[in-house]
Amino acid sequence: MIAFNLLKIDNPAMTASLKSILTLTTLFFINACGADNSADSVWRELSLNNTVLLTLPHGKVVIELAPQFSPIHVAQFSQLTQQGFYDQTSFYRVIDGFVAQAGPKDGSKKDRSVPLLAMEAEWQTDKKWTYTSVQENDLFAEQTGFKDSFALGYQASNDGNTGKAWLTHCPGTVAMARNNEADSASSHFYFVIGQAPRYLDRIMTIFGRVVYGMQHIQAIQRTEVVKGDYAVDHRDFTKIVSMQLMSDVTKADQIHIEVENTESTNFADRLVKRRARDSAFFYKKPPPVLDVCQIPIRSRRVK
Amino acid sequence: MIAFNLLKIDNPAMTASLKSILTLTTLFFINACGADNSADSVWRELSLNNTVLLTLPHGKVVIELAPQFSPIHVAQFSQLTQQGFYDQTSFYRVIDGFVAQAGPKDGSKKDRSVPLLAMEAEWQTDKKWTYTSVQENDLFAEQTGFKDSFALGYQASNDGNTGKAWLTHCPGTVAMARNNEADSASSHFYFVIGQAPRYLDRIMTIFGRVVYGMQHIQAIQRTEVVKGDYAVDHRDFTKIVSMQLMSDVTKADQIHIEVENTESTNFADRLVKRRARDSAFFYKKPPPVLDVCQIPIRSRRVK
Repeated sequence: MIAFNLLKIDNPAMTASLKSILTLTTLFFINACGADNSADSVWRELSLNNTVLLTLPHGKVVIELAPQFSPIHVAQFSQLTQQGFYDQTSFYRVIDGFVAQAGPKDGSKKDRSVPLLAMEAEWQTDKKWTYTSVQENDLFAEQTGFKDSFALGYQASNDGNTGKAWLTHCPGTVAMARNNEADSASSHFYFVIGQAPRYLDRIMTIFGRVVYGMQHIQAIQRTEVVKGDYAVDHRDFTKIVSMQLMSDVTKADQIHIEVENTESTNFADRLVKRRARDSAFFYKKPPPVLDVCQIPIRSRRVK
Repeated sequence: MIAFNLLKIDNPAMTASLKSILTLTTLFFINACGADNSADSVWRELSLNNTVLLTLPHGKVVIELAPQFSPIHVAQFSQLTQQGFYDQTSFYRVIDGFVAQAGPKDGSKKDRSVPLLAMEAEWQTDKKWTYTSVQENDLFAEQTGFKDSFALGYQASNDGNTGKAWLTHCPGTVAMARNNEADSASSHFYFVIGQAPRYLDRIMTIFGRVVYGMQHIQAIQRTEVVKGDYAVDHRDFTKIVSMQLMSDVTKADQIHIEVENTESTNFADRLVKRRARDSAFFYKKPPPVLDVCQIPIRSRRVK
């Protein structure tokens, strides 16, 4: 049901049982996966098994899932998606500049039917683990960078060989909501729609990111208003028309996306240029630093 | 025509001629201005002379102008607004996660009719100058903070008594666009609609910020699409229905806004709490740092 990406092989966060599944399915999915992270490949094709089509009343959105970083969350989200669980649910908590959150009615039978998930907000890295570095001494992390087009934070251990890494809450990331307890996420999820709430890093599980149609996420009806303004009627909340794995969408309606390969030399060059700001527009140079959440990762539609 | 806020008195960026105007108008505007930045006042009422009503086809937006930081830009923008200059112009450069930019047709007679503006992107501070501090060693600035609800960066001079301060490009800020030359802005302006492009700080003049209806700015039609997608027809670009100084709007249609007084003890307390993250939700504490662009400044509608 879920295609495991080859990249997951060296992911130390993976549980033993998932590793077994992976061993069995790796060969089968080599082609379906379609990932090409070689240094000379500017673009990376997204697997249809690993891509979600979210249809909103006002537009279509494509999400890339991140099973290499949060396999259990992706597995559950994919399964619910295939069951049509999210169809007709509402974005019931939408705060401008912060998040757009959706899910079934709190405490309903449907809501309680879904198993709770163990946190997958960060993972241990070994000395073979690599990423594309962006910035040292970022306000929220010792190091920032990208892996597989996902923005991340990294903190080395004292031994210098191992460390901890985590996906970071940039605009467009998709994460699972939870109650106060760490391992209390189930089906409710949110998109980040404003300035990166990095204080949620490492305590919320990010499991995907928007790769197409982010403007439609930004147009979701806000549910919270400023004091003194008219409340928004819940009947006006934005509903999910449907949520489908792209591989389950009829061929004619599939949206095929490629994203910038952040492991490429091309991307590394782009980071160097972005930091240097050599264009004549910069008559005075900004500090030579990069906010990992302010580096747009390009997508292109190939079909 | 433009109400000068009392706070401007101690703004060293102000030109001599504007100071003269201020001296003449200060008494007159004491009441119209309505600012109350005393430490025990949680809210600050916005002057109708210093507030702009932007009517979009899909909603109403209120902008607070910042004459105390960029008087010349505010004067020109206000004058153009009162002339109906922006009515029916389009948001012709709208890039998701970055900016929504509007203005007259490039190179048109209307476009060329507007005087160029000298940059007002930063100002010198003296030792009496104060602000509400937020964070040291921010990625882009030695210090960050707020003054009059505007986010800013600050860098002390070697003498420790003086320094430079600048408004910073948080989501919702309004700034004047320009060509490559520093002093080439005239009438084209942009809203920041994504992760703060802080590399534009100090080289672009910010002159206001959205205090109401930001969700409508986020819903402006994007004009740039991903590669391989259908181009957006220019007839579908979002048009400005009207742009008016709030004081010129008929009473029944005025929107009166108060914003959080960032000079208040209440706000200082809120910063302490936000940094500490003491709620049970934070089962593991994030780093005790604050991104100045990720601190929502509350607004409320009072009429």
